Amino acid sequence: MDSPTDTRIAFIGLGVMGLPMALNLHRAGFSVVGHNRSPARSEAFAAQGGHTASSVAEAVHHADVVALMLPDSPDVEHVLLDEGGVFANAEPGSLVVDFSTIRPDVARSTSAAGAELGFRVLDAPVSGGEQGARDAALSIMVGGDDAAVAAVMPVLEAVGRTIVHVGPSGAGQTVKAANQLIVAGTIELVAEAMVFLEAHGLDVAKAVEVLAGGLAGSAVLDRKAAGMVARQYKPGFRVALHHKDLGIALSSARDAGVATPMGALAGQLVGALVAQGRGDLDHSALLAQVEELSGRSAASGETRS
Amino acid sequence: MDSPTDTRIAFIGLGVMGLPMALNLHRAGFSVVGHNRSPARSEAFAAQGGHTASSVAEAVHHADVVALMLPDSPDVEHVLLDEGGVFANAEPGSLVVDFSTIRPDVARSTSAAGAELGFRVLDAPVSGGEQGARDAALSIMVGGDDAAVAAVMPVLEAVGRTIVHVGPSGAGQTVKAANQLIVAGTIELVAEAMVFLEAHGLDVAKAVEVLAGGLAGSAVLDRKAAGMVARQYKPGFRVALHHKDLGIALSSARDAGVATPMGALAGQLVGALVAQGRGDLDHSALLAQVEELSGRSAASGETRS
Amino acid sequence: MDSPTDTRIAFIGLGVMGLPMALNLHRAGFSVVGHNRSPARSEAFAAQGGHTASSVAEAVHHADVVALMLPDSPDVEHVLLDEGGVFANAEPGSLVVDFSTIRPDVARSTSAAGAELGFRVLDAPVSGGEQGARDAALSIMVGGDDAAVAAVMPVLEAVGRTIVHVGPSGAGQTVKAANQLIVAGTIELVAEAMVFLEAHGLDVAKAVEVLAGGLAGSAVLDRKAAGMVARQYKPGFRVALHHKDLGIALSSARDAGVATPMGALAGQLVGALVAQGRGDLDHSALLAQVEELSGRSAASGETRS
Amino acid sequence: MDSPTDTRIAFIGLGVMGLPMALNLHRAGFSVVGHNRSPARSEAFAAQGGHTASSVAEAVHHADVVALMLPDSPDVEHVLLDEGGVFANAEPGSLVVDFSTIRPDVARSTSAAGAELGFRVLDAPVSGGEQGARDAALSIMVGGDDAAVAAVMPVLEAVGRTIVHVGPSGAGQTVKAANQLIVAGTIELVAEAMVFLEAHGLDVAKAVEVLAGGLAGSAVLDRKAAGMVARQYKPGFRVALHHKDLGIALSSARDAGVATPMGALAGQLVGALVAQGRGDLDHSALLAQVEELSGRSAASGETRS
Repeated sequence: MDSPTDTRIAFIGLGVMGLPMALNLHRAGFSVVGHNRSPARSEAFAAQGGHTASSVAEAVHHADVVALMLPDSPDVEHVLLDEGGVFANAEPGSLVVDFSTIRPDVARSTSAAGAELGFRVLDAPVSGGEQGARDAALSIMVGGDDAAVAAVMPVLEAVGRTIVHVGPSGAGQTVKAANQLIVAGTIELVAEAMVFLEAHGLDVAKAVEVLAGGLAGSAVLDRKAAGMVARQYKPGFRVALHHKDLGIALSSARDAGVATPMGALAGQLVGALVAQGRGDLDHSALLAQVEELSGRSAASGETRS
Repeated sequence: MDSPTDTRIAFIGLGVMGLPMALNLHRAGFSVVGHNRSPARSEAFAAQGGHTASSVAEAVHHADVVALMLPDSPDVEHVLLDEGGVFANAEPGSLVVDFSTIRPDVARSTSAAGAELGFRVLDAPVSGGEQGARDAALSIMVGGDDAAVAAVMPVLEAVGRTIVHVGPSGAGQTVKAANQLIVAGTIELVAEAMVFLEAHGLDVAKAVEVLAGGLAGSAVLDRKAAGMVARQYKPGFRVALHHKDLGIALSSARDAGVATPMGALAGQLVGALVAQGRGDLDHSALLAQVEELSGRSAASGETRS
Repeated sequence: MDSPTDTRIAFIGLGVMGLPMALNLHRAGFSVVGHNRSPARSEAFAAQGGHTASSVAEAVHHADVVALMLPDSPDVEHVLLDEGGVFANAEPGSLVVDFSTIRPDVARSTSAAGAELGFRVLDAPVSGGEQGARDAALSIMVGGDDAAVAAVMPVLEAVGRTIVHVGPSGAGQTVKAANQLIVAGTIELVAEAMVFLEAHGLDVAKAVEVLAGGLAGSAVLDRKAAGMVARQYKPGFRVALHHKDLGIALSSARDAGVATPMGALAGQLVGALVAQGRGDLDHSALLAQVEELSGRSAASGETRS
Repeated sequence: MDSPTDTRIAFIGLGVMGLPMALNLHRAGFSVVGHNRSPARSEAFAAQGGHTASSVAEAVHHADVVALMLPDSPDVEHVLLDEGGVFANAEPGSLVVDFSTIRPDVARSTSAAGAELGFRVLDAPVSGGEQGARDAALSIMVGGDDAAVAAVMPVLEAVGRTIVHVGPSGAGQTVKAANQLIVAGTIELVAEAMVFLEAHGLDVAKAVEVLAGGLAGSAVLDRKAAGMVARQYKPGFRVALHHKDLGIALSSARDAGVATPMGALAGQLVGALVAQGRGDLDHSALLAQVEELSGRSAASGETRS
C-alpha cells in the first residue's frame, strides 16, 4: 500500500467508534469518504473536514480500502451483500476491513463471498472503547490472509496501538468474543468488590488505587473505576451491545464444547440489565445491579447516566 | 523514623514472600533480624547476609519495627499473643506491621490487644506475588492510624511500589479480601477464554498479546498468561492460600450483606482445586479445571508443576 | 374422535420413548402403524404385535392421527415438510401430534405450514422418561387449538397421566423448555447434596429416604436417586438430549429477557458432560462431575453405565 | 417408653413450628409442658389446653423428654448449657430431642456435653414447614444412638410422617443442611421457570399443573407454587432462617471439600433477599428477585406479604 495520501478509504458506519476512527484516518493523511445511514453523523464527520457520501455505493466507488464499523452481523451482511452494497459497487481487488464485532461464522461467510468476487475481506474487531478510538490506541485482532493483512497495516496503525494478526478469516472475531467474556466478567468482579468495600465503610477510590497496582489490576480498573465510583454510566460501551457480543461468545463456546461457567454467569447479569431497560447505559452499570442485589440503592446512579 | 541504618526490624516469617521482603529491607540498609519456625528458611536469609534469631522473643528484643508475614489468622495470633510472642517480648512503643493476609476482625482484635500494651499495630497485606516481593514492587494496602502509617512508611517503601493507607485498623485486610476476589475471578475468566481460543484452533499466545492491549487487559494476563499457556503451575501463589483468602472474603461479604455471585462461583472453583489435591499448585491451575470441564486433558499440565 | 378401534394412528419414531408409547397405543386398541428410520426398532414393534411401514409416506397413508417422537427440530421439519413426508402424503384434515421436544418457533412454523395444507398440528412434548412412557404415565404439555386438542385427547390419555392444554401452538414446547431447566437443575442439586452427605460419612440411601419426604422431595429424588446411589448412569434420558433441550430453553429465555442464573449454570454443567464425551450417559451423571470437582473419584461410575 | 399418658414432655420454643408440634403431642395424649421466651406464644399454647411453665428450669423439672425447637445454634447452647437451662435442671437420664436446625458441630458438642451429665441428646431437625408441623406430617432426620432413637420414637411419630435415623449425633443436622441446599435451589429453579413462562405469555398455573406431574415435579411445586403464582410471600419459612441454614450448609460443604456450585449460587440469591430487607418474607420470595432481574416488576408482590 502506498502512502496515506494515495490511499482512498471508504468508511461505512460513523457511530460512537466509527467517527473518531474515520477522523484519525483523515488526520493521518488518508483520503477518507465517510458514510452513515443517519446523516447527522456524516455531518459531524464533514464538520471536521471529512468527505462524505450519501450512499454506500457512492462511498466505495473509487476506494482502495473499505472500512466497516457496524452494530451487528445482519448490518454487515446488508452493507456487503445488498444490491447497493460494497461487493456490487466497489472495485474488485479492493480490501475490505470489517472493524465491527460480529459472529465469527458470518465473518467467514462474508469473506468467502467477497473472495469469489475478487475482494480481500479481513475481520478486524477492536477493543479499547470510545477513548481508545479517539486516541488511536485501539487493540485490533485481525483475521485473514497474510498478504491482505500486510497490505492494510498502515490503515490499522492509524487507528490502533496493539495490532495482532491472530489467524485466518473469522479468527479476529473469535478473539474478540473471548475479549468480551473477559471484560464483562472483570467489570462484574470489580463491581462486586466495590460494593463489598463500600459496605465495609471504606473509601473506594483509595482502595482502587492500591488494587490497580497489584495482581487485581486491570484495564477495567484503570479506565472504568473512576466512572463507577461516580456512578456515571454514560457510554462508553452500551450494555445492549455487550449483551449481543456475549450472545455470540457463549453460543460459540457452546458449539466448541467449552465450559465457561463464569462467562455464562456474567452473561446472565448483563442480560438482566438489558431486560431491566438499562441497555443504553455503559456496561459498567453492572455496579448498579450488584448494589440492588445487596440492598444498597443505585437509583441515583441510573438517573445520572 | 530515622534513616534505615538506625531502624532495627524483626522480620517473622521468611516464606515465599517473607524472605525476599526481608532481603529487600536488608539491602535498603535496615538492620534486619529474621526468624522463621523452620530453620531452613532462616539459613537462606543468613546465607544472603541477614541476621537471624532462633525465637520470636529473641528477634523482637531490640526491634523498632516488627514485621510479620505468616500464613493465616491463628499464626498471627500465636506470634503476637503467646507468652513467647511479640507483645510479651518486644519493646512497648514499637511498631508492628503485619503483612500477612488474615481475617479483618483478627486484624482489629490483635491491633486493639497490642494498643492496650502500648504497641502500634498496622495491617499491611500485599499483592503482587513472589515476583513483586523480589522486585520490591508490591502493592500494599495499609490499615491503621495516620501517625503509625507515616512512621513506618520508609519500611513499606523498601518493599512496595504502590502503598495506600486505605483506612483504620482492619481496612487493609478488607481491601486485600476484595483483591483476592478479583484475582481469582480474573484468573478463571482468562482460563475460560484460553480454552475457548484453543478449542477454536487459535494461537493463544498471539491472542493474549492483543487481549492484553485492550479493555480485557489485566495484571493476570501480563504476569500469569505465559505460564498458563505453558501449563506451568509452579507457585507463585498457592491454590490453598487463595482458598483460605476467599473463605475470608466470602464470609466477610456474607456478614456485610453484599451479593458476590461471581466471587462465590470463583470460590467454588478454587475450592474444587483444593478438594482435588491441587492445593500446592499455582492458582493459575484454574486453567486445568476448565480444560477438564471441557473434555480437554490437563493431565500433562499437572505433572509439569 | 371415535373409539380406538376406529382410529388409525401412524407413529413415526420408535426410539427409547416412541416404542413404548406406540405399544401403549396398540394395547389401548388403536390401529397403529409404526415407522422408524433404522429398521431394528420397527422390528421390535412388529415383534410385539404392531404393524409397521417402511416409509413415512406409507405409514401416514390412511392415518387419522400422525404421532411423531423424534430427536430434534430438524428431524421434525424433515418428516413433516419433505417430499416423502407427512404433509405431502397424509390425508388433509388429519391430526398431527408431535411428542418431540423441539424449538417453540419450529413448532409454531411447522404448525402454520400444516394449517395451510389443511392439517391440524399440535405440539405435545412429554416428561416422565422411559419409565413414564412404559407405564403410560407421562406428563404431556399440549399446545394448539382447543378443538384439535379435544379431538386427540383419547390418544393422549392412552400414553399419559397428566395432560394439560397449556396454550396455543408452541406453548407445549415452551413449558417443556421450563421443565428441562428445572429437571437439570434439580439433578445437579441432588448430586451436590449426595456428595455432601457422602463426604460427611453418611448413608446416602437413608438420607434420601427422609429428604424425599420433606420440602426437598422431588420426582428426581423418587426416580433417579437410587440409580445415582448405585452410580448406574444407563439412560434413561441421555445427557446429549438434555443438552440440546437446555440450548432451546436458555436461548428462549435470552430472547424473552428472562434471567435464569441457576438454569444457565446447570446448562454449563450439562454442557461439560457432553464435552467430556459423556453425552450417552443418563443425565443423572451430573453426579460424576460433582464427585470429580470434589476430588472423589467417579471413574467406576462411568464404566458402569 | 410407655404410653403417651405416662410420658411427660417439656417443649421449649413455641414458635411457628414449635407451637403446632407441641399441640400435636398434647393431642396425642402426652403430658406436655410448654415454655417460650416471649409469653404470648405460651398463652396461645395454654389457650388450646396445654400446660405452660414460666422458665426452662420449671418446664423440664419432671420431664421424661425435653423437646427443643429454637432458631439457631447459640439459642440451643443457651437453653441446654446455661445455669437455668436443661442440663442443670432436668433429671439425668432424660432424653433431649432437639428439633432445631443448627450447626452439626454444635449438635455434636452439646450432645457430648449432655452425655457427660447422663443425658441422651438427639438431633432431629425437620422439614415440611408450618403446614407439615400442623398436619403432623414432618420429615424428621434423626442423629444419635440407636437405643435413644428407639425410645423416643413414639414422640417423633406424633409430629412426623417420615422419620429416618440417619446416623450418629450430628448426622440429622448434616442431612438437614443438604435438605436446605436442595430446597433453596429448587425454589429458585421454579421461580426462574415461572418468570420464563410468564414472559412467554403462558398461564403459569396450568403449566405448573403439568410440570408437577413429570420429572420436574417436587414438593416445592406442590406446596409453594400456588402461593408464588399469587405472589403471596407470607411465611411459611422465613428467608432469614433459610439464609442462616445455607450458611451452615455451605460452610460445612467447604470444610468437607465438596463442590456445590449450584448451592453456592442459591446461597447468594437468598443472601441478596436478606440484604434487600426481605428476610421476613417466605423463601418463595426468590420469585420476586427473578422478576426484578428480568425487568418485571415485583413491587406488588412484596407489599402483599
